[in-house]
Amino acid sequence: MKSNNYIPFNKPYLSGKETEYINDAVESGKISGNGKYTKLCQDYFQNRYGFYKCLLTTSCTDALEMAAILLNIKEGDEVIMPSFTFVSTANAFVLRGAKIVFADSKMDEPNLDVNRIETLITPLTKAIVVVHYAGVACDMDAIMDIANRHNLYVVEDAAQAIDSHYIGANGVKKPLGSIGHLAAFSFHETKNIISGEGGMLVVNDPTFEMRSEIIWEKGTNRSAFFRGEVDKYAWVDIGSSFLPSEIVAAFLYAQLEHLDSIQQKRKLLWNMFFNLLSNSALESKIKMPFIPHYAENNAHMFYLVCDNINTRTKLIEVLKKHNFHSVFHYLSLHNSPLYYQRHDGRELFNSDKYAETLLRLPLFYELSVQNVKDICKVISEFCTTSEV
Amino acid sequence: MKSNNYIPFNKPYLSGKETEYINDAVESGKISGNGKYTKLCQDYFQNRYGFYKCLLTTSCTDALEMAAILLNIKEGDEVIMPSFTFVSTANAFVLRGAKIVFADSKMDEPNLDVNRIETLITPLTKAIVVVHYAGVACDMDAIMDIANRHNLYVVEDAAQAIDSHYIGANGVKKPLGSIGHLAAFSFHETKNIISGEGGMLVVNDPTFEMRSEIIWEKGTNRSAFFRGEVDKYAWVDIGSSFLPSEIVAAFLYAQLEHLDSIQQKRKLLWNMFFNLLSNSALESKIKMPFIPHYAENNAHMFYLVCDNINTRTKLIEVLKKHNFHSVFHYLSLHNSPLYYQRHDGRELFNSDKYAETLLRLPLFYELSVQNVKDICKVISEFCTTSEV
Repeated sequence: MKSNNYIPFNKPYLSGKETEYINDAVESGKISGNGKYTKLCQDYFQNRYGFYKCLLTTSCTDALEMAAILLNIKEGDEVIMPSFTFVSTANAFVLRGAKIVFADSKMDEPNLDVNRIETLITPLTKAIVVVHYAGVACDMDAIMDIANRHNLYVVEDAAQAIDSHYIGANGVKKPLGSIGHLAAFSFHETKNIISGEGGMLVVNDPTFEMRSEIIWEKGTNRSAFFRGEVDKYAWVDIGSSFLPSEIVAAFLYAQLEHLDSIQQKRKLLWNMFFNLLSNSALESKIKMPFIPHYAENNAHMFYLVCDNINTRTKLIEVLKKHNFHSVFHYLSLHNSPLYYQRHDGRELFNSDKYAETLLRLPLFYELSVQNVKDICKVISEFCTTSEV
Repeated sequence: MKSNNYIPFNKPYLSGKETEYINDAVESGKISGNGKYTKLCQDYFQNRYGFYKCLLTTSCTDALEMAAILLNIKEGDEVIMPSFTFVSTANAFVLRGAKIVFADSKMDEPNLDVNRIETLITPLTKAIVVVHYAGVACDMDAIMDIANRHNLYVVEDAAQAIDSHYIGANGVKKPLGSIGHLAAFSFHETKNIISGEGGMLVVNDPTFEMRSEIIWEKGTNRSAFFRGEVDKYAWVDIGSSFLPSEIVAAFLYAQLEHLDSIQQKRKLLWNMFFNLLSNSALESKIKMPFIPHYAENNAHMFYLVCDNINTRTKLIEVLKKHNFHSVFHYLSLHNSPLYYQRHDGRELFNSDKYAETLLRLPLFYELSVQNVKDICKVISEFCTTSEV
């Protein structure tokens, strides 16, 4: 039974102004999409991170679907992406008819192994979708170089990567989501800043700018109409209703105003986890997350890599007994019921390894320093005494 | 310039409990989709209207996309639908590769002409999508009969049709959205009950029940997992993130609690418009909406049909001068920039007629009886004195 001391895996953070802004939106008489708060959020992201153009969406899934439509993905096109990712990364492109070519993760961290991407490229390859797992950057210099040489598009699945950066070989630090031709963010309740469900498409290649607005507005040129560029708006392209309610945008805007304090707190907690668990006595059972030199950490997630699935299962149980809720994910997509028969048969050992051994610990704004100490104590005791 | 007396075309209605429920959702620690308020809304609709299964979506567009996926619409399939409809009706099926076969509207009202549907059916036809324009029922007995004889699916685009009914030849009254195999509703801010953006898929054919949940949850069997029917959830089908945030669902639930009083007020206003404008002296310029004997009116919309486009343009201007905002829609989809080259060349005279002559008057909960009188006075004067 869960006592009052129960620590959930996640708890949504409320900045305090969410309902004030929602009320303001309702009072204004405009709560459908693309209103005041949508614009405030989009401007905020464009100004803070230098994204060329931002469009709020109802989910990161929807932002990825917009990317697939913008890239004109069609039956027979191949898209390279990691197997260790959320289903939406793949679904968005499968919905347009793409064949997914799954790449393996690196040995030392879950992000895709850039050194082995090039062997997966064929004349049918259209795009590489990188996933910045846990908000930790993929090696974007290497990826953009490959993409440029093979004339491929790059989509950053930056679902977990808000306020995270990549440090290039030239020393220049770039926000994740600003490097690929397109990028997708999530504001799902488990993310650093949230709106329950929610997401955003980032357009960095200006050639996609006009069409991105059209696809966002159900395939109509409504945005151009409101700017007075056309005298009526019409059905000019495929598209969907990708834009969220102003209620959702108002909620998100209240979060953005607190982004810096949220990030400060999350980083504090993340570093505590890292320091308390970086202990050679624990290494036979658990490994710490690895952050490459080119990656900044946005403290989206604190994960451990267990030595095997039994250790992970046992550790989840032990944490649960102490009222701490830890979780695992993902199942490798190349082995999924939907895709294993379409997969080309390559073994993706690292992807399967993380599917079996990665464990996510509670990490949210209201988690206390004492909570982190308590969780780390349980884990330390488990690793030094358990006989799993 | 708009004075303080400006009457907008629409104003969102706030029941008063929206933010209380949103706060409750946030406090519960669960604001992503498929939580308490999503279930409350879905149960409400199932119980009130006898829908077999309801799934909230981020928009009616998304509900239509779910329908297209559930029907396995693929390249080459033909789908029959009216040309006088919102782009999403068509987009949802075009995204899956369908060829849209556009049907004309009836002479006496914008709904599709059932008597001419059968000539459009070919061996490639997979579904008929009916749109209950203005919440006024299509002739569902006739449509279901055609569909049954030709083994076609029927999707009700019930975007505007909440709380509206069809009265069958046998005298039995059925809620719109409960008759076709699938149905889609909208809770966009202009609808009778709202959540800014929002929608719902209704599954009436139980064979779609299990797959509808999977598609809704990004192609995973997560719903079955939470019911304990499978021990982990996996990627088993195509899908998307169709489910809205609990913030949106909480807002909608506050509206549902007031559905009866909202409907009462809207019907009062609608009947006032109808009575004040049903005057033979106005008939040379404007026609009243026609409600067939089998259709109940949910007072979603009060529209007029002008004698030609010039009258409509002039009437919009005159209303605007008096601070009343009226609007028109839709452009016939068969003539749209996206589709005119794919259309088979048939003229759809009635569709084009409504595109050119239909005018929507302000109609929302807070509109006053005096407002309606004032609007009708301007229209009456226009019709009896204007020389358009």
